Amino acid sequence: MKPIALADWLQQWLNTGSGEPAYRQLYRLLRQAILDGRLPSGVRLPSSRELARDLSIARNTVIQVYEQLAIEGYVHAASGKGTFVEDTSQDTVDSASSAAWGDHAQATGESNRGLSMRGRRLMDRLGFSRRQYGAFMAGLPDVAEFPAKAWLRIQNKHWRSSPGRLLSYAAAGGYPPLRQAISAYLNSSRSVNSKAEQVVVTTGIHQALDVATRLLCEIGDTVWIEDPSYWGLRNLLISSGLNVEPIPVDGEGIRPSQRDLRRPPRLIVVTPSHQYPLGMVMSLARRRMLLDYARKHGCWIVEDDYDSDFRYESRPLPSLQGLDSAGQVLYVGSFSKTMYPGLRIGYMVVPERIAPAFASAVAELYREGQMMTQSVTAEFVREGYLSSHVRRVRNLYAQRRALLIDAIRSHYQDSLDIIGDEAGLHLVLALPDHVDDVEICRQAFDRGIMVRPLSDYYLIKPRMRRGLLLGYAQVQQEQIGPAFRILASVLDAHIAEGQHPAPGVSAPAGRT
Amino acid sequence: MKPIALADWLQQWLNTGSGEPAYRQLYRLLRQAILDGRLPSGVRLPSSRELARDLSIARNTVIQVYEQLAIEGYVHAASGKGTFVEDTSQDTVDSASSAAWGDHAQATGESNRGLSMRGRRLMDRLGFSRRQYGAFMAGLPDVAEFPAKAWLRIQNKHWRSSPGRLLSYAAAGGYPPLRQAISAYLNSSRSVNSKAEQVVVTTGIHQALDVATRLLCEIGDTVWIEDPSYWGLRNLLISSGLNVEPIPVDGEGIRPSQRDLRRPPRLIVVTPSHQYPLGMVMSLARRRMLLDYARKHGCWIVEDDYDSDFRYESRPLPSLQGLDSAGQVLYVGSFSKTMYPGLRIGYMVVPERIAPAFASAVAELYREGQMMTQSVTAEFVREGYLSSHVRRVRNLYAQRRALLIDAIRSHYQDSLDIIGDEAGLHLVLALPDHVDDVEICRQAFDRGIMVRPLSDYYLIKPRMRRGLLLGYAQVQQEQIGPAFRILASVLDAHIAEGQHPAPGVSAPAGRT
Repeated sequence: MKPIALADWLQQWLNTGSGEPAYRQLYRLLRQAILDGRLPSGVRLPSSRELARDLSIARNTVIQVYEQLAIEGYVHAASGKGTFVEDTSQDTVDSASSAAWGDHAQATGESNRGLSMRGRRLMDRLGFSRRQYGAFMAGLPDVAEFPAKAWLRIQNKHWRSSPGRLLSYAAAGGYPPLRQAISAYLNSSRSVNSKAEQVVVTTGIHQALDVATRLLCEIGDTVWIEDPSYWGLRNLLISSGLNVEPIPVDGEGIRPSQRDLRRPPRLIVVTPSHQYPLGMVMSLARRRMLLDYARKHGCWIVEDDYDSDFRYESRPLPSLQGLDSAGQVLYVGSFSKTMYPGLRIGYMVVPERIAPAFASAVAELYREGQMMTQSVTAEFVREGYLSSHVRRVRNLYAQRRALLIDAIRSHYQDSLDIIGDEAGLHLVLALPDHVDDVEICRQAFDRGIMVRPLSDYYLIKPRMRRGLLLGYAQVQQEQIGPAFRILASVLDAHIAEGQHPAPGVSAPAGRT
Repeated sequence: MKPIALADWLQQWLNTGSGEPAYRQLYRLLRQAILDGRLPSGVRLPSSRELARDLSIARNTVIQVYEQLAIEGYVHAASGKGTFVEDTSQDTVDSASSAAWGDHAQATGESNRGLSMRGRRLMDRLGFSRRQYGAFMAGLPDVAEFPAKAWLRIQNKHWRSSPGRLLSYAAAGGYPPLRQAISAYLNSSRSVNSKAEQVVVTTGIHQALDVATRLLCEIGDTVWIEDPSYWGLRNLLISSGLNVEPIPVDGEGIRPSQRDLRRPPRLIVVTPSHQYPLGMVMSLARRRMLLDYARKHGCWIVEDDYDSDFRYESRPLPSLQGLDSAGQVLYVGSFSKTMYPGLRIGYMVVPERIAPAFASAVAELYREGQMMTQSVTAEFVREGYLSSHVRRVRNLYAQRRALLIDAIRSHYQDSLDIIGDEAGLHLVLALPDHVDDVEICRQAFDRGIMVRPLSDYYLIKPRMRRGLLLGYAQVQQEQIGPAFRILASVLDAHIAEGQHPAPGVSAPAGRT
């Protein structure tokens, strides 16, 4: 967008009659334009004087908005030169700096010609990893442990005996016996409160969020996500034309500020059982606050319960959905961690009154199918194979987790914190603020070790913490120690460097 | 939206400095608001005098826009009372009047409380069918003919011998051997011009269109679709916040008017091999015009090649993609018709320079997987099972098609036209304009026969033609005659009624 077009574009959207203060509108619009790529990095914003004049608003309002955006890391002021959009493709945390650590295609430059702004923006902040195995890739179960024989036996039986109709398009909402099996499983294992008709089968959490926003939000509606949060959902939401508001978390989970609370969103996406990626559990007080706030303001809550079947130190906590008496919570999950990711079967539990709409929308928008796979899964769950598999690998993952913690402690004693390790498939190794976790990941990748930088999961720069996500669930016991020693050799240099800066070497700009 | 809010909303969007005439902007905005449900059916629009005053534009402009919208069936003028949004949930063609013919959940009323406007609008115009089998459900192959034994043999082999990594998340773009197999298959069978790296594996045509619009279009960009067209893609596009422009078709395919041509869209979605649902083939002259226009104006073209493997009267035509020398065409298809719908594997062939971005986006947005299924499919295609299956069922479908045409001819001789029967899995039985095809479908459904009304596929009312889509591919030979006789008994009464109106009986409003 050329600077001259910016004022026109803002003019179209600013609505003085809406009751929303001009300050807030301008802040929201500019941030949106930066997030969705309409204002690319490096662009100079108009001076506060010019913009105030073009929009017929007070100059102080513009100054205040620029300052706020600078605090949050969206722009920076170069004295005497003006205010510039941050070079987000290089070093702000919300762009996938991961693109820089060698893990995935750098679909930049030539290959992005012809893409839309939002398309280019998506390419700039890709989060997925090309390699889906090995130490210490986070978020993966050990697929080699999946009871493939039992699965294959059921699969062959269903192919040989089931009606051909299972090969056609699906009934809306999924294969009914699978909806029943999921409902029973979640009610008993996750204290979810569901009937089979409330269960809608999806291809995973991404699809669940996509259908939820299409049915519950208008384009441009505000959605709260946790900051830090899972890159996949964040990028999906931004690419869908929603206004994503990153809300901070503390030790008890999501913690909206007073200012946030004054602007209720349409949808709130949370990970109460095991915050992603930090791993804390949302406190009961915070859960009650959230439910109460959502009820009062008519917000919907999406509870993303992606890996809480694996809890090591205590019993799994009941779901937020189970506490919901007003029918505002949509519980979403998948079999990606409990069975295997390539299965691509997920589920959502939707409040009763809107469940038929969700079942229909999934059929309409995605032309769902795979009833054969769904019927096999239904028997697998119903006959208890899932529960016993989860019990078995939970013990295995607990051993691997202990080995990794031992390896960390024996190298670093208590000088580095381990966080979020009570549940799930990964833990976070916290690092001092001066350390460049993105660079560490890049160097580790070059030595065959996959780790992800914690800073990469934040949208708001000043909140950013440094650390590494270490997945242990799919690493063989005997590899854990050796792999960690390779990682530590990379890590040691960085930690030492910050403590005794060499002449002429300084931390990268914006990272101190 | 309350009438008082309408002017405010329009004011926000009208942009006198944009160069787009006020007439065109107002027309576009009002149509958009009707299509996405912001202006629900039955609402009275402000008088032309009021609106002209509120927007500070000429009253004649408003009058002209209201007239155009009335011609296209979006609003109607009740003399002396004002201009009203058409009751689209009841009888205009773009709403799924299908909701009225009993085929799917009427997720209306109570169950839609709490949904967004676009969500409610989607529920009002659902197109999918709950029943996915039987005479004469269109768009289905005969899944009972699928060589399940060969499939199962390959499947068991891969489960037993393949590395567990095939159970994890997918490499971006799909399993490489499948991308190779698809490229080779399309190059030989459809004259597509592709390398394996240009092939991106999807879950079907819906996902292909979703990723294409996210990467190539901004929210609010204009997309041309054919009118009539497939409900699934239309509803997906509208739900994605795009401005859908329905372009008429004639005997040679899509035919934009001079007015359309002056406003180049960002994306053009066409079905050149077998227009859906009418069945004509796009002429070479029209193909060249379209490619030339797209090249000149920087538009992207999506070629939806959903069922052209089945062609009975002549050899399949080469794809539009094969003619494309400028890299503007995205070819999309799936194995839903050639293998079975529940497989949920589709593909797109993307111009080389943007292919890496598409591969990455599919991984990022949908967290793709199912490499095991993809590896089985790769062998199935590579080893020639697909080609020989297609050859075999093409003969079978040809017999069924001939039986259906015989049944139609023996009952109606040449009094009803059969169109679009040269290829695919369905034909269209054209009906006289006075006949209510939606009501016929409802009555047929009550007698166990699934047919879909042609009028339902149109967005612009005055273009609407009456007819029935009859799928024959998955109907057993011995059922075709008897099932058609049941349908004919419903049909006869309607055709006769229009010719000799009974006293007190008239065609429903708006349908004459």
